[in-house]
Amino acid sequence: MTDIQGRVRNKALRSKIATAAEAVSIIKPGMNIGASGFTFAGYPKAVPLALAERIRQEKFQINLWTGASVGPELDGILAEVNGIARRMPYQTDDRLRKSINSGKVAYSDVHLSHMAQMAGYGFLGGKVDVAIIEACAITEEGHIIPTTSVGNSASYVQNADTVIVEINTTQPAELEGMHDVFLHQLLPKRQPIPIVKANDRIGTTYIPCGLDKIVYIVPCDIPDAVRELAAVNENCRAMTAHLIEFLKFEIRAGRLPPNLLPLQSGVGSVANAVIAGLADSDFEDLTVYTEVIQDGMFDLIDAGKLTFASGTSLTPSPAGIKHFYANLPNYRQKIIFRPQEISNSPEVIRRLGVIAMNTAIEFDIYGHVNSTHIAGSKIMNGIGGSGDFARNAYLTFFFTNSVAKDGKISSVVPMCSHIDHTEHDVDVFITERGVADVRGLSPRERARVIIDRCAHPDYQPLLLDYLVRAEKITNQAHTPVLLDEALSWHSRYVSSGSMKV
Amino acid sequence: MTDIQGRVRNKALRSKIATAAEAVSIIKPGMNIGASGFTFAGYPKAVPLALAERIRQEKFQINLWTGASVGPELDGILAEVNGIARRMPYQTDDRLRKSINSGKVAYSDVHLSHMAQMAGYGFLGGKVDVAIIEACAITEEGHIIPTTSVGNSASYVQNADTVIVEINTTQPAELEGMHDVFLHQLLPKRQPIPIVKANDRIGTTYIPCGLDKIVYIVPCDIPDAVRELAAVNENCRAMTAHLIEFLKFEIRAGRLPPNLLPLQSGVGSVANAVIAGLADSDFEDLTVYTEVIQDGMFDLIDAGKLTFASGTSLTPSPAGIKHFYANLPNYRQKIIFRPQEISNSPEVIRRLGVIAMNTAIEFDIYGHVNSTHIAGSKIMNGIGGSGDFARNAYLTFFFTNSVAKDGKISSVVPMCSHIDHTEHDVDVFITERGVADVRGLSPRERARVIIDRCAHPDYQPLLLDYLVRAEKITNQAHTPVLLDEALSWHSRYVSSGSMKV
Repeated sequence: MTDIQGRVRNKALRSKIATAAEAVSIIKPGMNIGASGFTFAGYPKAVPLALAERIRQEKFQINLWTGASVGPELDGILAEVNGIARRMPYQTDDRLRKSINSGKVAYSDVHLSHMAQMAGYGFLGGKVDVAIIEACAITEEGHIIPTTSVGNSASYVQNADTVIVEINTTQPAELEGMHDVFLHQLLPKRQPIPIVKANDRIGTTYIPCGLDKIVYIVPCDIPDAVRELAAVNENCRAMTAHLIEFLKFEIRAGRLPPNLLPLQSGVGSVANAVIAGLADSDFEDLTVYTEVIQDGMFDLIDAGKLTFASGTSLTPSPAGIKHFYANLPNYRQKIIFRPQEISNSPEVIRRLGVIAMNTAIEFDIYGHVNSTHIAGSKIMNGIGGSGDFARNAYLTFFFTNSVAKDGKISSVVPMCSHIDHTEHDVDVFITERGVADVRGLSPRERARVIIDRCAHPDYQPLLLDYLVRAEKITNQAHTPVLLDEALSWHSRYVSSGSMKV
Repeated sequence: MTDIQGRVRNKALRSKIATAAEAVSIIKPGMNIGASGFTFAGYPKAVPLALAERIRQEKFQINLWTGASVGPELDGILAEVNGIARRMPYQTDDRLRKSINSGKVAYSDVHLSHMAQMAGYGFLGGKVDVAIIEACAITEEGHIIPTTSVGNSASYVQNADTVIVEINTTQPAELEGMHDVFLHQLLPKRQPIPIVKANDRIGTTYIPCGLDKIVYIVPCDIPDAVRELAAVNENCRAMTAHLIEFLKFEIRAGRLPPNLLPLQSGVGSVANAVIAGLADSDFEDLTVYTEVIQDGMFDLIDAGKLTFASGTSLTPSPAGIKHFYANLPNYRQKIIFRPQEISNSPEVIRRLGVIAMNTAIEFDIYGHVNSTHIAGSKIMNGIGGSGDFARNAYLTFFFTNSVAKDGKISSVVPMCSHIDHTEHDVDVFITERGVADVRGLSPRERARVIIDRCAHPDYQPLLLDYLVRAEKITNQAHTPVLLDEALSWHSRYVSSGSMKV
């Protein structure tokens, strides 16, 4: 309790220190809960565990809004006790995914940059009833120092009358100063977001809150449930090599400066491997303007190649978080966490000319991308921030292995079974096979380049056969589609377990 | 020739006045031509007609980049003589559409806000070789006063070494002062676009050019080929009534201020009718931040309800343009034309909280929108600026009649045959049947609301039957899709001429 007392700097406020069970007593069925957390970072743990316990006994549901995905102590346990009626804007939890696909949880999968506005202006049915925010500390004035993510926390606190702060004593107090919290004026008085470089500071190091809103302060000693990344394999190395070669070509063509433009990369093993791979390149003086800071970026900083990384969250592996904590004095100078409305802001992404690198589940010959659904129906995670970046970037890449499930699934298909990014949004596709640069091409041209450069040889003849027949049969078509056959590859996979004929 | 002399204010520059035939002598096969024009407004006419004549004899092709669609004296005639190899970023011409669908012209259909950046940074194969810009006048310094549109003209002039100015003497010289030309600094030095209200002036009243780039000045007396709008019908009136009722509901709920937020509406008869319909509402003090200023906005200004309209182009009917010219002194105070990179800027659209209203060819039960293709294959026009607004608006509407072709086509389908706007992008769907507000809903919930409120009674049972079977058969699906049946409605239409069973 000593540590927690020290982290609550306002003495009067210490009277609000309580157990998680006490804190969740104020939560009522049907409430909108706005929680901190973006990936397995900075989400509350003790309070939701206590909430789940109450729900297990009392059987009720709440609506859960977060920054993005969160750890099992929030999404997983609440899904398990059937405690979530509605969930936004993103998730990656096994138990929750099952509840969503079975229709038990109403999940609305939105662009991460949109969430704060939608919640704040009452688009989702009422305001945030209770905000639950993981913190390093609370200032004398009652402002909140976040931990390993900012996400939508500042917006939820602003929107709520009632705030529960969960002080996580496993999070080093030295995180203070790494956050930059900027909140928009209310419409119609919004001003430009004054960021012109990845390292610009435009806000406060705390989430503005004040003493009155905080109703409970709960200590917590559960660390972020960070996850292992998959090992970097041959395919990742091939994709990274393709990327580096392509970027060098762009530099030589005068379309990119030698130190590139700010980099964004999606969450996950492939994205992380690609970023880490840049450590072995001869690029220098790089910057990052992204959502999540992953292990690969530590490698880049350690290699002296990355001068600054702006994100909304830290998403390291177990080894990565240890490394981060051990070298905090160094990383403090080179990493900043912003609200996701700012990290994912179309305005800033477009202005800075970000290079966006995200992974696809599949893409089709005409350049559409599926980021969310398996065979059109089952959701995997959600679109996350990929749309914020892909649509607004200077250069937009999508990566995927050319095949999945031991070659039974082709990631390049005649038509995506679900479309999250359209033909209008993507510049370059990369698989381990190669690079398809589709800028300025017509759909038919795109199809030939994508099949030739990105598809797996096992599927290239099938794709080409589809294209040629579609061109003949549709007659006079900008985008030749065989309506009876376009989704047959997915159908075959569902019925036979393979897309192969 | 007197009038043209007066419009070329620099005396030395008058030596460059030439015929269109002389001017096009500098155009070489394979060149990238950057032309002014956005809709049937402000595009060059005399020079492309002469170019077509040369191409008819010499048989060669150029690549044509414009602001958006342009009139028949540019797109139509060049398509007719098979003079276009590549076309970007948008078109609406019958002859060109045919060439695109037949594969003769490589058409790349991109977000209108993206085009200047893509061309300017060399993404499309080289720079602008020759810019052809319709103008009211040229200043003493060699800067260009545009006419009824700005589009990408300023970017193309900036990017080109060689500029042909076509002085259109049918365009009133009093247009001068209505333009506001702002160009970005080059990356990585871009700054915020300092617009915080629709009527903010941030640039120059001319396109910066200078004396040296201008190689020919060609007089032209062909007026903009403005087109008639379809008469406002019962369905348009019903959609407008639904919109007004919905907006009033949002005001009462505190989600919109009484004078709304800046309005955007797409090009065309339905969009125009909806805007015009607001003239009979009791909204006041409205503003517009959009691409095209159509007749409906004159009605709103005349009714004293619209205080200011910002766009990139004027797109009136023949009667509308007459009315505009006759009342220019009044409209000059209330209308501004900006480059499309600014009128369609995600940054500004998001900041101002624009209300985006666009029309769809079809949408599906899960909330995806097809704006471009008939039955998946044939392109109609292109995505235009709809994505710039739909993705970034505060509130995003899509409108369409519930059926087309005398009821043989349902505009609400199980799955769109082409997707330009995803489930993540739309807030509200409106047909003449009603309003589907899908904010925060899961796909299954969206489907029920869309079928119930927007679909035509002839197709409601079929759609509901599809949904219920999909839910059963897919088992455990966030977005239940029957892969073998999802596109069968389009297939049936192609083979039998009707989507009805």
